[in-house]
Amino acid sequence: MRILGIDPGSRAAGYGLIEATGNRLDFIACGVIRVTPGFSFGARLQEIHSGIVEVLARHRPQQAAIEEVFMAKNANSALKLGHARGVLMLAVMQAEVALAEYSPRQIKQAATGYGNADKEQVQHMVRVVLSLSKAPSQDAADALAVAICHANHHRFAQGLTGAKPPIPTKGSVR
Amino acid sequence: MRILGIDPGSRAAGYGLIEATGNRLDFIACGVIRVTPGFSFGARLQEIHSGIVEVLARHRPQQAAIEEVFMAKNANSALKLGHARGVLMLAVMQAEVALAEYSPRQIKQAATGYGNADKEQVQHMVRVVLSLSKAPSQDAADALAVAICHANHHRFAQGLTGAKPPIPTKGSVR
Repeated sequence: MRILGIDPGSRAAGYGLIEATGNRLDFIACGVIRVTPGFSFGARLQEIHSGIVEVLARHRPQQAAIEEVFMAKNANSALKLGHARGVLMLAVMQAEVALAEYSPRQIKQAATGYGNADKEQVQHMVRVVLSLSKAPSQDAADALAVAICHANHHRFAQGLTGAKPPIPTKGSVR
Repeated sequence: MRILGIDPGSRAAGYGLIEATGNRLDFIACGVIRVTPGFSFGARLQEIHSGIVEVLARHRPQQAAIEEVFMAKNANSALKLGHARGVLMLAVMQAEVALAEYSPRQIKQAATGYGNADKEQVQHMVRVVLSLSKAPSQDAADALAVAICHANHHRFAQGLTGAKPPIPTKGSVR
Protein backbone atom coordinates (compact mmCIF):
# COMPACT_ATOMS: atom_id res chain seq x y z
CA MET A 1 0.00 0.00 0.00
CA ARG A 2 1.41 3.37 -1.01
CA ILE A 3 0.78 6.10 1.57
CA LEU A 4 1.13 9.86 1.15
CA GLY A 5 1.83 11.82 4.32
CA ILE A 6 1.24 15.57 4.33
CA ASP A 7 2.63 18.18 6.71
CA PRO A 8 0.41 21.20 6.01
CA GLY A 9 1.88 24.69 5.89
CA SER A 10 0.99 28.01 4.28
CA ARG A 11 4.55 28.83 3.20
CA ALA A 12 5.91 25.29 2.80
CA ALA A 13 3.99 22.02 2.79
CA GLY A 14 5.93 18.79 3.26
CA TYR A 15 5.00 15.55 1.54
CA GLY A 16 6.35 12.05 1.97
CA LEU A 17 5.50 8.75 0.29
CA ILE A 18 6.15 5.31 1.67
CA GLU A 19 5.20 1.82 0.57
CA ALA A 20 3.86 -0.39 3.38
CA THR A 21 4.13 -4.13 2.69
CA GLY A 22 3.15 -6.17 5.75
CA ASN A 23 5.46 -4.85 8.47
CA ARG A 24 7.93 -3.45 6.01
CA LEU A 25 8.06 0.28 5.24
CA ASP A 26 9.93 1.49 2.17
CA PHE A 27 10.76 5.06 1.31
CA ILE A 28 9.43 6.20 -2.08
CA ALA A 29 9.83 9.97 -2.23
CA CYS A 30 9.62 13.14 -0.20
CA GLY A 31 9.85 16.85 -0.74
CA VAL A 32 8.55 20.28 0.09
CA ILE A 33 6.04 22.38 -1.85
CA ARG A 34 7.23 25.97 -1.51
CA VAL A 35 5.30 29.08 -2.42
CA THR A 36 6.61 32.20 -4.12
CA PRO A 37 7.07 34.86 -1.39
CA GLY A 38 5.95 37.85 -3.50
CA PHE A 39 2.71 36.21 -4.66
CA SER A 40 -0.73 37.09 -3.27
CA PHE A 41 -2.17 34.76 -0.65
CA GLY A 42 -4.65 33.40 -3.22
CA ALA A 43 -1.87 32.71 -5.73
CA ARG A 44 0.14 30.94 -3.01
CA LEU A 45 -2.85 28.73 -2.18
CA GLN A 46 -2.99 27.87 -5.87
CA GLU A 47 0.71 26.93 -5.83
CA ILE A 48 0.17 24.63 -2.84
CA HIS A 49 -2.83 23.01 -4.51
CA SER A 50 -1.04 22.52 -7.87
CA GLY A 51 2.01 21.15 -6.05
CA ILE A 52 0.13 18.42 -4.22
CA VAL A 53 -2.00 17.64 -7.30
CA GLU A 54 1.28 16.96 -9.14
CA VAL A 55 2.59 14.74 -6.31
CA LEU A 56 -0.69 12.77 -6.29
CA ALA A 57 -0.58 12.32 -10.09
CA ARG A 58 3.07 11.27 -10.13
CA HIS A 59 3.04 8.82 -7.21
CA ARG A 60 -0.60 7.62 -7.16
CA PRO A 61 -0.90 6.78 -3.44
CA GLN A 62 -3.80 4.55 -2.33
CA GLN A 63 -4.12 6.34 0.99
CA ALA A 64 -3.22 9.72 2.40
CA ALA A 65 -2.87 11.17 5.88
CA ILE A 66 -2.52 14.76 7.04
CA GLU A 67 -1.57 16.33 10.34
CA GLU A 68 -4.37 17.94 12.32
CA VAL A 69 -3.84 21.55 13.28
CA PHE A 70 -4.83 23.28 16.46
CA MET A 71 -4.99 26.91 17.38
CA ALA A 72 -1.46 28.04 18.13
CA LYS A 73 -0.51 31.13 20.12
CA ASN A 74 -0.49 33.02 16.83
CA ALA A 75 -4.14 32.88 15.78
CA ASN A 76 -3.47 34.57 12.46
CA SER A 77 -0.89 31.97 11.39
CA ALA A 78 -3.30 29.20 12.40
CA LEU A 79 -5.98 30.75 10.23
CA LYS A 80 -3.60 30.95 7.25
CA LEU A 81 -2.57 27.37 7.91
CA GLY A 82 -6.27 26.44 7.81
CA HIS A 83 -6.56 27.90 4.29
CA ALA A 84 -3.52 25.92 3.11
CA ARG A 85 -4.69 22.73 4.78
CA GLY A 86 -8.09 23.19 3.10
CA VAL A 87 -6.63 23.22 -0.42
CA LEU A 88 -4.34 20.27 0.42
CA MET A 89 -7.32 18.22 1.67
CA LEU A 90 -9.30 19.26 -1.40
CA ALA A 91 -6.60 17.93 -3.76
CA VAL A 92 -6.60 14.55 -1.98
CA MET A 93 -10.41 14.33 -2.18
CA GLN A 94 -10.35 15.32 -5.86
CA ALA A 95 -7.86 12.50 -6.53
CA GLU A 96 -10.32 10.13 -4.78
CA VAL A 97 -7.69 9.03 -2.28
CA ALA A 98 -8.86 8.06 1.22
CA LEU A 99 -7.73 10.67 3.74
CA ALA A 100 -6.98 10.13 7.43
CA GLU A 101 -6.07 12.77 10.04
CA TYR A 102 -3.73 12.40 13.01
CA SER A 103 -2.82 14.72 15.85
CA PRO A 104 0.80 15.93 16.22
CA ARG A 105 1.03 13.75 19.33
CA GLN A 106 -0.08 10.59 17.50
CA ILE A 107 2.43 11.30 14.73
CA LYS A 108 5.36 11.86 17.10
CA GLN A 109 4.38 8.78 19.08
CA ALA A 110 4.29 6.65 15.91
CA ALA A 111 7.61 7.92 14.55
CA THR A 112 9.64 8.10 17.77
CA GLY A 113 7.67 6.21 20.44
CA TYR A 114 7.34 9.49 22.36
CA GLY A 115 4.40 11.89 21.95
CA ASN A 116 6.39 14.95 23.00
CA ALA A 117 9.37 14.32 20.73
CA ASP A 118 10.99 17.40 19.21
CA LYS A 119 11.46 18.10 15.49
CA GLU A 120 15.06 16.80 15.48
CA GLN A 121 14.06 13.49 17.09
CA VAL A 122 11.32 13.03 14.47
CA GLN A 123 13.80 13.83 11.70
CA HIS A 124 16.32 11.36 13.13
CA MET A 125 13.85 8.51 13.67
CA VAL A 126 12.26 8.90 10.21
CA ARG A 127 15.75 8.49 8.77
CA VAL A 128 16.37 5.36 10.87
CA VAL A 129 12.93 3.77 10.28
CA LEU A 130 13.14 4.26 6.51
CA SER A 131 16.92 3.51 6.30
CA LEU A 132 17.70 6.78 4.54
CA SER A 133 21.33 7.67 3.83
CA LYS A 134 20.69 11.22 5.04
CA ALA A 135 18.00 12.98 7.02
CA PRO A 136 15.22 14.60 4.95
CA SER A 137 14.44 18.28 5.51
CA GLN A 138 12.24 19.00 8.53
CA ASP A 139 9.00 19.54 6.58
CA ALA A 140 9.59 16.40 4.50
CA ALA A 141 10.52 14.37 7.62
CA ASP A 142 7.29 15.51 9.33
CA ALA A 143 5.32 14.39 6.27
CA LEU A 144 7.06 10.99 6.25
CA ALA A 145 6.24 10.69 9.96
CA VAL A 146 2.55 11.25 9.13
CA ALA A 147 2.75 8.44 6.53
CA ILE A 148 4.50 6.14 9.05
CA CYS A 149 1.79 6.96 11.61
CA HIS A 150 -0.92 6.01 9.13
CA ALA A 151 0.85 2.77 8.18
CA ASN A 152 1.00 1.82 11.90
CA HIS A 153 -2.66 2.60 12.50
CA HIS A 154 -3.61 0.70 9.39
CA ARG A 155 -1.62 -2.36 10.45
CA PHE A 156 -3.06 -2.19 13.94
CA ALA A 157 -6.60 -1.99 12.57
CA GLN A 158 -5.91 -4.95 10.29
CA GLY A 159 -4.53 -6.96 13.20
CA LEU A 160 -7.62 -6.25 15.30
CA THR A 161 -10.24 -7.29 12.80
CA GLY A 162 -8.19 -9.70 10.74
CA ALA A 163 -9.65 -7.98 7.70
CA LYS A 164 -9.19 -4.71 5.90
CA PRO A 165 -10.24 -1.77 8.03
CA PRO A 166 -12.94 0.54 6.72
CA ILE A 167 -11.36 3.12 4.50
CA PRO A 168 -13.02 6.51 4.74
CA THR A 169 -14.26 7.63 1.37
CA LYS A 170 -16.27 10.52 0.08
CA GLY A 171 -19.58 10.61 1.80
CA SER A 172 -18.55 8.73 4.91
CA VAL A 173 -19.18 10.10 8.36
CA ARG A 174 -16.13 10.91 10.41
CA MET B 1 -18.42 44.84 -14.85
CA ARG B 2 -19.78 41.66 -13.30
CA ILE B 3 -18.76 41.16 -9.67
CA LEU B 4 -19.01 38.00 -7.58
CA GLY B 5 -19.22 38.53 -3.82
CA ILE B 6 -18.48 35.61 -1.51
CA ASP B 7 -19.47 35.17 2.14
CA PRO B 8 -17.24 32.29 3.25
CA GLY B 9 -18.54 29.58 5.56
CA SER B 10 -17.73 25.96 6.32
CA ARG B 11 -21.36 24.79 6.42
CA ALA B 12 -22.91 27.33 4.05
CA ALA B 13 -21.13 29.78 1.74
CA GLY B 14 -23.14 32.65 0.28
CA TYR B 15 -22.56 34.03 -3.19
CA GLY B 16 -23.99 37.07 -4.93
CA LEU B 17 -23.49 38.52 -8.40
CA ILE B 18 -24.10 42.09 -9.45
CA GLU B 19 -23.46 44.03 -12.62
CA ALA B 20 -21.86 47.45 -12.06
CA THR B 21 -22.39 49.88 -14.94
CA GLY B 22 -21.06 53.34 -14.05
CA ASN B 23 -22.92 54.13 -10.85
CA ARG B 24 -25.67 51.65 -11.51
CA LEU B 25 -25.74 48.32 -9.69
CA ASP B 26 -27.94 45.53 -11.02
CA PHE B 27 -28.72 42.28 -9.31
CA ILE B 28 -27.79 39.20 -11.33
CA ALA B 29 -28.04 36.19 -9.03
CA CYS B 30 -27.44 35.01 -5.49
CA GLY B 31 -27.58 31.81 -3.52
CA VAL B 32 -26.05 29.63 -0.88
CA ILE B 33 -23.72 26.66 -1.33
CA ARG B 34 -24.70 24.16 1.35
CA VAL B 35 -22.76 21.08 2.37
CA THR B 36 -24.16 17.65 3.20
CA PRO B 37 -24.15 17.35 7.02
CA GLY B 38 -23.17 13.64 7.15
CA PHE B 39 -20.18 14.02 4.83
CA SER B 40 -16.57 14.04 6.05
CA PHE B 41 -14.91 17.45 6.40
CA GLY B 42 -12.82 16.74 3.29
CA ALA B 43 -15.90 15.84 1.26
CA ARG B 44 -17.64 19.02 2.45
CA LEU B 45 -14.66 21.13 1.34
CA GLN B 46 -15.00 19.45 -2.05
CA GLU B 47 -18.72 20.37 -2.16
CA ILE B 48 -17.91 24.02 -1.38
CA HIS B 49 -15.21 24.09 -4.06
CA SER B 50 -17.42 22.42 -6.71
CA GLY B 51 -20.28 24.75 -5.82
CA ILE B 52 -18.32 27.95 -6.38
CA VAL B 53 -16.61 26.49 -9.49
CA GLU B 54 -20.12 26.01 -10.92
CA VAL B 55 -21.16 29.57 -10.00
CA LEU B 56 -17.99 30.97 -11.64
CA ALA B 57 -18.59 28.91 -14.82
CA ARG B 58 -22.27 29.87 -15.06
CA HIS B 59 -21.97 33.61 -14.39
CA ARG B 60 -18.42 34.38 -15.55
CA PRO B 61 -17.68 37.39 -13.29
CA GLN B 62 -14.77 39.68 -14.20
CA GLN B 63 -13.96 40.38 -10.57
CA ALA B 64 -14.55 38.72 -7.24
CA ALA B 65 -14.40 39.80 -3.61
CA ILE B 66 -14.45 37.79 -0.41
CA GLU B 67 -14.92 38.70 3.24
CA GLU B 68 -11.85 38.57 5.45
CA VAL B 69 -12.12 36.42 8.54
CA PHE B 70 -10.68 37.04 11.95
CA MET B 71 -10.27 34.81 14.93
CA ALA B 72 -13.62 34.54 16.62
CA LYS B 73 -14.18 33.45 20.22
CA ASN B 74 -14.54 29.92 18.90
CA ALA B 75 -11.05 29.19 17.56
CA ASN B 76 -12.03 25.82 16.17
CA SER B 77 -14.82 27.28 14.01
CA ALA B 78 -12.44 29.95 12.75
CA LEU B 79 -9.97 27.25 11.74
CA LYS B 80 -12.70 25.33 9.87
CA LEU B 81 -13.77 28.57 8.24
CA GLY B 82 -10.15 29.06 7.13
CA HIS B 83 -10.23 25.70 5.32
CA ALA B 84 -13.48 26.60 3.54
CA ARG B 85 -12.24 30.08 2.66
CA GLY B 86 -9.06 28.51 1.25
CA VAL B 87 -10.95 26.33 -1.25
CA LEU B 88 -13.24 29.25 -2.20
CA MET B 89 -10.22 31.49 -2.89
CA LEU B 90 -8.58 28.65 -4.83
CA ALA B 91 -11.60 28.31 -7.15
CA VAL B 92 -11.53 32.05 -7.93
CA MET B 93 -7.79 31.91 -8.67
CA GLN B 94 -8.25 28.83 -10.86
CA ALA B 95 -10.93 30.71 -12.86
CA GLU B 96 -8.38 33.54 -13.31
CA VAL B 97 -10.72 36.09 -11.79
CA ALA B 98 -9.19 39.01 -9.86
CA LEU B 99 -9.88 38.62 -6.14
CA ALA B 100 -10.21 41.41 -3.56
CA GLU B 101 -10.67 41.07 0.20
CA TYR B 102 -12.64 43.34 2.53
CA SER B 103 -13.09 43.37 6.29
CA PRO B 104 -16.57 42.84 7.76
CA ARG B 105 -16.50 46.51 8.80
CA GLN B 106 -15.77 47.75 5.26
CA ILE B 107 -18.56 45.57 3.89
CA LYS B 108 -21.15 46.78 6.42
CA GLN B 109 -20.06 50.37 5.86
CA ALA B 110 -20.49 50.00 2.09
CA ALA B 111 -23.88 48.31 2.27
CA THR B 112 -25.49 50.31 5.08
CA GLY B 113 -23.28 53.37 5.68
CA TYR B 114 -22.57 52.04 9.18
CA GLY B 115 -19.60 49.79 10.03
CA ASN B 116 -21.30 48.16 13.01
CA ALA B 117 -24.57 47.35 11.24
CA ASP B 118 -26.24 44.07 12.23
CA LYS B 119 -27.13 41.21 9.88
CA GLU B 120 -30.74 42.36 9.47
CA GLN B 121 -29.69 45.90 8.49
CA VAL B 122 -27.33 44.48 5.86
CA GLN B 123 -30.10 42.20 4.56
CA HIS B 124 -32.52 45.14 4.40
CA MET B 125 -30.13 47.58 2.69
CA VAL B 126 -28.96 45.02 0.11
CA ARG B 127 -32.62 44.59 -0.83
CA VAL B 128 -33.13 48.35 -1.13
CA VAL B 129 -29.88 49.06 -3.01
CA LEU B 130 -30.49 46.30 -5.55
CA SER B 131 -34.28 46.92 -5.75
CA LEU B 132 -35.13 43.33 -4.91
CA SER B 133 -38.78 42.34 -4.44
CA LYS B 134 -37.86 40.34 -1.33
CA ALA B 135 -34.85 40.11 0.97
CA PRO B 136 -32.31 37.43 0.06
CA SER B 137 -31.30 34.89 2.72
CA GLN B 138 -28.71 36.16 5.22
CA ASP B 139 -25.72 34.34 3.66
CA ALA B 140 -26.71 35.48 0.16
CA ALA B 141 -27.32 39.06 1.38
CA ASP B 142 -23.87 39.12 3.00
CA ALA B 143 -22.34 37.95 -0.28
CA LEU B 144 -24.20 40.65 -2.23
CA ALA B 145 -22.95 43.21 0.32
CA VAL B 146 -19.38 42.07 -0.42
CA ALA B 147 -20.00 42.59 -4.16
CA ILE B 148 -21.51 46.06 -3.49
CA CYS B 149 -18.48 46.93 -1.34
CA HIS B 150 -16.15 45.94 -4.17
CA ALA B 151 -18.16 47.95 -6.73
CA ASN B 152 -17.84 51.04 -4.50
CA HIS B 153 -14.10 50.63 -4.01
CA HIS B 154 -13.66 50.08 -7.71
CA ARG B 155 -15.64 53.22 -8.59
CA PHE B 156 -13.66 55.21 -6.05
CA ALA B 157 -10.40 53.97 -7.59
CA GLN B 158 -11.67 55.00 -11.03
CA GLY B 159 -12.62 58.42 -9.65
CA LEU B 160 -9.09 58.88 -8.34
CA THR B 161 -7.56 58.20 -11.74
CA GLY B 162 -9.86 60.72 -13.43
CA ALA B 163 -11.88 58.13 -15.30
CA LYS B 164 -15.48 57.99 -14.13
CA PRO B 165 -16.12 60.13 -11.06
CA PRO B 166 -18.57 58.66 -8.58
CA ILE B 167 -21.94 60.43 -8.83
CA PRO B 168 -24.51 59.30 -6.27
CA THR B 169 -27.71 58.08 -7.91
CA LYS B 170 -30.74 56.14 -6.77
CA GLY B 171 -28.99 52.81 -7.15
CA SER B 172 -25.72 53.89 -5.60
CA VAL B 173 -24.73 53.27 -2.03
CA ARG B 174 -22.15 55.97 -1.41
